Amino acid sequence: MQLNKEAPYVLGIDLGGTNVRAAVLDKQGNLKGSGRAPSFATEGMAQTAGQIVHAAQTAMQSAGVKPEEVAGVGMGVPGHIDDKNGVVLWAPNFFEQGGPWRNVRLASPIEAMLNLPVFMGNDANVAALGEFRFGAGRGSRTIVMVTLGTGIGGGIILDGKLWTGATGGAGEIGHIIVAAGERGGASAFGSLESMGQIAAICERAARKMCDGRKTILNERVEDWHFLTPKIIADAAAEGDAVAIEVYEEVGTYVGYGIASMINLLNPEMVVIGGGVAQAGELILEPIRRSTRNNGIPTLVKSCKIVPAELGDDAGIYGGASLALDAIETA
Amino acid sequence: MQLNKEAPYVLGIDLGGTNVRAAVLDKQGNLKGSGRAPSFATEGMAQTAGQIVHAAQTAMQSAGVKPEEVAGVGMGVPGHIDDKNGVVLWAPNFFEQGGPWRNVRLASPIEAMLNLPVFMGNDANVAALGEFRFGAGRGSRTIVMVTLGTGIGGGIILDGKLWTGATGGAGEIGHIIVAAGERGGASAFGSLESMGQIAAICERAARKMCDGRKTILNERVEDWHFLTPKIIADAAAEGDAVAIEVYEEVGTYVGYGIASMINLLNPEMVVIGGGVAQAGELILEPIRRSTRNNGIPTLVKSCKIVPAELGDDAGIYGGASLALDAIETA
Repeated sequence: MQLNKEAPYVLGIDLGGTNVRAAVLDKQGNLKGSGRAPSFATEGMAQTAGQIVHAAQTAMQSAGVKPEEVAGVGMGVPGHIDDKNGVVLWAPNFFEQGGPWRNVRLASPIEAMLNLPVFMGNDANVAALGEFRFGAGRGSRTIVMVTLGTGIGGGIILDGKLWTGATGGAGEIGHIIVAAGERGGASAFGSLESMGQIAAICERAARKMCDGRKTILNERVEDWHFLTPKIIADAAAEGDAVAIEVYEEVGTYVGYGIASMINLLNPEMVVIGGGVAQAGELILEPIRRSTRNNGIPTLVKSCKIVPAELGDDAGIYGGASLALDAIETA
Repeated sequence: MQLNKEAPYVLGIDLGGTNVRAAVLDKQGNLKGSGRAPSFATEGMAQTAGQIVHAAQTAMQSAGVKPEEVAGVGMGVPGHIDDKNGVVLWAPNFFEQGGPWRNVRLASPIEAMLNLPVFMGNDANVAALGEFRFGAGRGSRTIVMVTLGTGIGGGIILDGKLWTGATGGAGEIGHIIVAAGERGGASAFGSLESMGQIAAICERAARKMCDGRKTILNERVEDWHFLTPKIIADAAAEGDAVAIEVYEEVGTYVGYGIASMINLLNPEMVVIGGGVAQAGELILEPIRRSTRNNGIPTLVKSCKIVPAELGDDAGIYGGASLALDAIETA
């Protein structure tokens, strides 16, 4: 599909398991309009593709922009993506005839329906691209983004370009191993994700409650099954030693992973995003301390560790960035 | 200094703590002549630079090549290198007035003496470049090289180019953390280096001897202080269960690090070099198994794990590659 480089707008799309969000941006990153639709993740590719197109059309209508004024579409998809061929190699949260998506050609039907070129990437990689171009990474050349949430993901931008690897699977930051043989989850035992994800935060607090530690968490939840990172962070803000300890411990493990990536890639900046990062300095301070204690001093010194700026919008800004990258390298 | 792109040869230099080696290669990587000199690492930069030039001149003489037939010089230096400016930021094994080299402008005096442009890189990075262009990595675009020895180092080649990071310090593969809080060494506790270096191999065997395990190692050394990786590997080759176990355990930890790098960077190939790799399948088999068990299956499947091919010559071939890269991108 021909890229209309002269057209003034781009479309950014963030496909999630529940909703698909779309936005029209100009080339400076100003948001002109947006749309949203349920993603029908269990209904099969055709229906999901239809919902994506619907969200995109809503965004164009709300922006008062015609398809011929759009240069291209960039889309983040949660899965393993072959970005060169627009194929979803594997997406565990989307289904077709009862099984997860495997080798689904998602870009071409959307191209056909919108009559616009579609560029696709892994959702976490694409969000990193958004923070790089329009968020915390503005002005940098080489950054790593780490997203702390239900899982841990991220993306790597090297010398201005998203690094997707030999087969499109790079940037699986949550799957690096920092504490071999320790807690397991959906990724390997002792992986960054297993040690730092929301479940790990809540488990640590739960264990301290079960150990009989004195903490106001005992008053805040009926029992430890109801713990959330937010409840623990609020307790920490009130000075609860146990809650502070939980974030200290988890931040220490996240710091091991960040130190590893700094030692390996020597980036200028690490951007920390995702729901858990909303705890602010409570989690950032131990992350920075652990990174400093475990990374190579010269490399750590030359690397800022900062919070993300775009929040939930990183995906749509990232989608737009993917399209802008394609325009600039075309 | 002007790069004479048309000249038919390049000079590759490998500066080590004991010796400096130099070689003249043609652009296809055929070795035409070589030279060697003691590196006088404790005598100060001027004497070391003089020795480097001497080795280079010897190599040109042995090849029957004149300086004007050489396009450029590439050199690997063990330390943190600012490759853009030809400065050794820090080299712990080289001394000037009693302290290790810091911010030493090493390239320019050598350029002035040889009247040739000099390109400099970290020695492990440069060796990776040698394996990439002329060794095990021939024909690949994206590889990681891991060197297992006294320490653990390596280099990262992404889409055909050596990745040196924002400030020239990337590729410190030995310093990624795989087993937080475990064995310490010159790098962080639980780092890949601490868990996989020669000292870690010998320690594991020593501990098993001290635990009273039955092993032919008891007959091979007077006491465990005399253990070497070679002695342990030889015992393993004879079927000694304890010796095999040592390599199994160490290979498992090395595999954690390789799985992490595959998950992060999605390379086509990981090349394993250094003295410890001479144990062959004894160490490669557990490395491959652990990588498979801990990496993301699709990414592990698309990545070969192979032994290095150039041995001790990786450095001089890598130096030549650094010069060839400069010619090709000039």
